[in-house]
Amino acid sequence: MTDPTPLVGRHRIDGRPVRAGTPSFAAIDPRHGTAMEPRFADATAHEIDAACTLAEAAAQPFAAAGREVRAAFLESVAARIEALGDALLQRAHAETALPLARLTNERGRTCGQLRRFAQVVRDGAWLDARIDHGDPARTPLPKPDLRSMNVPLGPVAVFGASNFPLAFSVAGGDTAAAFAAGCPVVCKAHPAHPGTSELVGHAIVEALAEHDLPPGAFALLFGADHRVGQDLAAHRSLRAIAFTGSFAGGKALVEAAARRPTPIPVFAEMGSTNPVFVLQQRLARDGATIAKSLSASVTLGVGQFCTNPGLVVLPRGAAAEDFLAMLARELAATPEGTLLHAGIRSGYERRLGELRAVPGLRALVDAGAASGVCGARSALFAVDARTWLATPTLHEEVFGPATLAVLCDDAAQVLALARALPGQLSITILGDDADRDLLDALPPILVQKTGRILFAGMPTGVEVNDAIQHGGPWPATSDARGTSVGTRAIARFLRPVAWQDCPAARLPDELRDAGPPGVPRLVDGRRVVS
Amino acid sequence: MTDPTPLVGRHRIDGRPVRAGTPSFAAIDPRHGTAMEPRFADATAHEIDAACTLAEAAAQPFAAAGREVRAAFLESVAARIEALGDALLQRAHAETALPLARLTNERGRTCGQLRRFAQVVRDGAWLDARIDHGDPARTPLPKPDLRSMNVPLGPVAVFGASNFPLAFSVAGGDTAAAFAAGCPVVCKAHPAHPGTSELVGHAIVEALAEHDLPPGAFALLFGADHRVGQDLAAHRSLRAIAFTGSFAGGKALVEAAARRPTPIPVFAEMGSTNPVFVLQQRLARDGATIAKSLSASVTLGVGQFCTNPGLVVLPRGAAAEDFLAMLARELAATPEGTLLHAGIRSGYERRLGELRAVPGLRALVDAGAASGVCGARSALFAVDARTWLATPTLHEEVFGPATLAVLCDDAAQVLALARALPGQLSITILGDDADRDLLDALPPILVQKTGRILFAGMPTGVEVNDAIQHGGPWPATSDARGTSVGTRAIARFLRPVAWQDCPAARLPDELRDAGPPGVPRLVDGRRVVS
Repeated sequence: MTDPTPLVGRHRIDGRPVRAGTPSFAAIDPRHGTAMEPRFADATAHEIDAACTLAEAAAQPFAAAGREVRAAFLESVAARIEALGDALLQRAHAETALPLARLTNERGRTCGQLRRFAQVVRDGAWLDARIDHGDPARTPLPKPDLRSMNVPLGPVAVFGASNFPLAFSVAGGDTAAAFAAGCPVVCKAHPAHPGTSELVGHAIVEALAEHDLPPGAFALLFGADHRVGQDLAAHRSLRAIAFTGSFAGGKALVEAAARRPTPIPVFAEMGSTNPVFVLQQRLARDGATIAKSLSASVTLGVGQFCTNPGLVVLPRGAAAEDFLAMLARELAATPEGTLLHAGIRSGYERRLGELRAVPGLRALVDAGAASGVCGARSALFAVDARTWLATPTLHEEVFGPATLAVLCDDAAQVLALARALPGQLSITILGDDADRDLLDALPPILVQKTGRILFAGMPTGVEVNDAIQHGGPWPATSDARGTSVGTRAIARFLRPVAWQDCPAARLPDELRDAGPPGVPRLVDGRRVVS
Repeated sequence: MTDPTPLVGRHRIDGRPVRAGTPSFAAIDPRHGTAMEPRFADATAHEIDAACTLAEAAAQPFAAAGREVRAAFLESVAARIEALGDALLQRAHAETALPLARLTNERGRTCGQLRRFAQVVRDGAWLDARIDHGDPARTPLPKPDLRSMNVPLGPVAVFGASNFPLAFSVAGGDTAAAFAAGCPVVCKAHPAHPGTSELVGHAIVEALAEHDLPPGAFALLFGADHRVGQDLAAHRSLRAIAFTGSFAGGKALVEAAARRPTPIPVFAEMGSTNPVFVLQQRLARDGATIAKSLSASVTLGVGQFCTNPGLVVLPRGAAAEDFLAMLARELAATPEGTLLHAGIRSGYERRLGELRAVPGLRALVDAGAASGVCGARSALFAVDARTWLATPTLHEEVFGPATLAVLCDDAAQVLALARALPGQLSITILGDDADRDLLDALPPILVQKTGRILFAGMPTGVEVNDAIQHGGPWPATSDARGTSVGTRAIARFLRPVAWQDCPAARLPDELRDAGPPGVPRLVDGRRVVS
């Protein structure tokens, strides 16, 4: 474990710490409301321009360095994050109030993601390499030789998330996927954990230097003013934007990207209510167990997960009331938590107020505002399906440790609710064999609404692997075709290019007849591995 | 060959001919300017709503019919188009003035695309099926079973193109790719060839019925008013838009899609100048041959191809002047052609006027307006690179049989021009071994600008296969990640969904442990074919 670089409160551009603006904000310890050293400045328009222009210039050499160098670079980033040791965890803990055990796990996930993407880069399946050999003798026209594979889109702006200071921030899943694809990254750190971001950003800068990669392939910018993000999203050198955060923040970026002279794709993960359908027989058999696991899922990380279950659909009746009573006891017994920052606290209180104002809504757990600048207490509300269907504010996420139970009179009402759901990251159906009717009828509707459908467990705790999909139809994300978790995430930052009648010596290695070992290719219609 | 259904000038909604609006337009024979029977009406707001709402309702049953039924349906569409026989070709010829030989080839391509997509559907690689088995014994948390694959996005609006009345229209590449993906299609026919569109649309309706597929899975709407396209693009039931046409038309759809409460992806193929770089030594050795093939490519289909070479980059000097003189002779000797419709004619004349107004531009072939309502004569202009770099109107497409030569003083100017190029569908580099410096330096720049890079031949004549890429960075298309030609085109209409801890009986066939034969899958990190 090396002694980490002391924090200097400066952006990283071209591998160097810089700061032209006046320091204007600092991390706030959410438990005490106190500011931490050092102070940070909003990136200036000139700094944003420099970072993006350098990223564009670095795009070609960064990609040209090749897959093995890129894989080794990703592994170096992971090793350097680990080498930051306790200093990183302690700073992240101070900035977010997330427990050290959670942050230790999150660091493991972050480094695991980087190393997994290193393997993805080496494997080469993501290139989707294809060769259709030519035929000069074809009539009436000769057939040209065509070869194609994915190439990096170009510079990607990554917006760090507040709720995962490591796994969805500076060296998080979006950055790892963009680097794996061969794209430079300009990262805007989340202003709630600038110190954590600076430590990780420095690790990336050092890893680039270690592998003789262009320093312009990564920049870290700070900013508490929305202007920084808007200026960044508008920069002509960018080719894509990745964001994890609120619906309002994601929508603003989608609109900014559409206003550009050259529009670019935006992958915004904006959260969802992650409905959990508990069917009649299962509820009767297993209500107590489900109530316990649902309570744990709702309050995990003080409810600050994108996959937090904010909607529970139940068949009205005695079993549902028993279930709600158990769930209420569990939630009421959960100690008050500390939210990530004051903005989340005020958003949580505002949304609870909007729910309380809905006529007919029952507050089963609602102890009111917590103590502390960022304190939060769990909440449980219940409403009938007719009211839910007629009340759009109930369809939207409450970011925090709250959940809403919707009581349905019959299966038709469950199906009507399913059809009315907006897009989701996840939807869970818990049913027994005897719940067959809804177990048959719900999935065809719900698959159209979500990126992930669960038949057991709770939606929190997203696996990072090949098969995961963490994305879904609007408003869960801005582009249901993308995922921000798992190896498929690399596809967001790629586009195919075809080489026609190209001399072998000028082809990328992966498209020569004798391709590099192990890369799967589609050659004249057959899948082969050289 | 069966006798085709007579034209009735009606939309097709739910499998039936309907028309609520007042007939207001007809196909115009571009050779004579005369209207053809029958007359067609703009789709009403109610008709657009009905078509899209039915498409949404048909999405699930159409996808659930399965891959084999969908493949057989695509083959039926091809067979039914062929069965329309000469009546289809004659009508298309009358509506477009395209020669019968070309239309015969285009029909072959159209049916070939449909049959190729049938094979793609059966093959199943596009599903990108992945299985990560669970592990209940994993600590600290059990590992869930996760399985994912691509599912159809949902209803797609396809806007027919004027320049390919068969291959990019009602049953063209976009429709074939969307159907292959399992998406219903609402097609807006191009108003320049409504009769051709009605014949092909009827073939699709009959093929759906033949395979007991929901009639709502396809609708054909007519409209000469832009309002029809705008209303269609705004409909809440749509999940994607595919368009081939002008930059203005594509940009309007991109903006309409971004204004929706629920934004959706737009794949607009908007054309490009398809630059051809002819390097010094190659020009000296081979100028005459290149001049002939370039002239043929510029005038093919009266210059109405998306891949028409509208920009030729040459090293200034005697060889270039000889080349331009040969090219001018070839182009001047090309007979006057007939454009597809009066709108293209007026656009061509307007763009020629904009070019003529550029100071320093030399008109080498420019005989002025042709006779006939849609006549067009070839044109050749030349300009120095400095003027080109300073004159944005010269960077934009001229849709028609015209090309612009840009003369560069040195290699640095060639590279500056390359860097200034907007996004392209194709870029061609013609060089000899002795042109090594630019042959080394240009491709890394040009790959960032285009979807296809050619090292021989001309960009017109796009192959339809696995390796083709027909797309490119803005403004060539609205989304460089898509292609509208070749088997990769299916990817535009898919999104992944993950099933977590799903009982085997409720999984799609392709995700069960014993998968269907032949479908490649990624199982626990290994590529396998069951």
